[in-house]
Amino acid sequence: MGKCVIFCAGEFLGLAEPVGQEDLVIAADGGYRYTTALGITPHIVLGDFDSLGFVPENGQVFPVEKDDTDAMLAVRRGLERGYKEFVLYGTLDGPRLDHTIANLQTLQFLADHGATGFLVGCDQIATVVCNGCLELPAAYKGTVSVFCMGADAHGVTIEGLKYTLQNGVLSAGFPLGVSNAFVGKSGKISVDAGSLLVIYPRENGIK
Amino acid sequence: MGKCVIFCAGEFLGLAEPVGQEDLVIAADGGYRYTTALGITPHIVLGDFDSLGFVPENGQVFPVEKDDTDAMLAVRRGLERGYKEFVLYGTLDGPRLDHTIANLQTLQFLADHGATGFLVGCDQIATVVCNGCLELPAAYKGTVSVFCMGADAHGVTIEGLKYTLQNGVLSAGFPLGVSNAFVGKSGKISVDAGSLLVIYPRENGIK
Repeated sequence: MGKCVIFCAGEFLGLAEPVGQEDLVIAADGGYRYTTALGITPHIVLGDFDSLGFVPENGQVFPVEKDDTDAMLAVRRGLERGYKEFVLYGTLDGPRLDHTIANLQTLQFLADHGATGFLVGCDQIATVVCNGCLELPAAYKGTVSVFCMGADAHGVTIEGLKYTLQNGVLSAGFPLGVSNAFVGKSGKISVDAGSLLVIYPRENGIK
Repeated sequence: MGKCVIFCAGEFLGLAEPVGQEDLVIAADGGYRYTTALGITPHIVLGDFDSLGFVPENGQVFPVEKDDTDAMLAVRRGLERGYKEFVLYGTLDGPRLDHTIANLQTLQFLADHGATGFLVGCDQIATVVCNGCLELPAAYKGTVSVFCMGADAHGVTIEGLKYTLQNGVLSAGFPLGVSNAFVGKSGKISVDAGSLLVIYPRENGIK
């Protein structure tokens, strides 16, 4: 099974990896501009279309006044179809920090539903690890930050990075894990109970 | 007692309110550029000075390899001196989303220590409300977003905004409170147990 690749209305600097034949492509509102520019025909087009300003052919229209963001609408479609890995473009950069925060919480929503999401920004990639482990290749370079997402994260272990941690606790009230760094070794970030938000440079690729 | 006004190295578009005689002014690393530009002599200058590139006279130098960010070092100084209200510039906008997230968690750190902080960005202001209430004047305009910060927030009540909520629960896994709006009435956002991150347009002023 492929990935669910979602295009949203935030800034977009091009694909970080090719879209495969088996991938489900969803254009959410203004993200339709990006699929059009890439010459990709999305399998699903949805949103309230307040960003795009018009409704594309076959576009599924949702009211502006709704509980789900356009990204969340798209994520639900991917989950319904059984996808376990999600790549979301146009979700990390933009003038509205609150949109970015909403998208980071959408990563947690995916984790809560047994899936993994990656927000691909212009310079950075964000993902959430819930009760599990994220392995980072030795080739990765630059800065990596690890934050508590939600309630206190227990049993946090960070190995192979500049600063390591054994069975620690991270909380949303102290950013202990900001500005760690890759040092040419395989990295491992794991959490026994809770969730971690991990942010690393896009130049490394999605994973 | 005045406020603790902290200048950090992120983007800065000028003061949102005057600095008072009774305020404690702290320049953290690259934030020293802004106090210099404003003609303000900070009471404390601190940081690892990796952003600034030189150590100002009377600058308190901390190692680059430390658990506290420069913003956190500054916040601790203000708390030690008994300040209860903090305004932080240069903390919300910048190329590194992880720095922004660290600063949002610094708001939670302040809340956990009985203080209130406001991150003043170029376009938006962020604050955290912990087991309490935030009143928003009827004159406020634009969009306001409310997120769970940390563990699930219980007893969340939102009044006077476009979308209201009575005794609800917000979690970090679903951004229910994104893109609410001021509607010309006094707004009230309260939480019985937990913390909320609130983001609103800077044009409204700090509070």
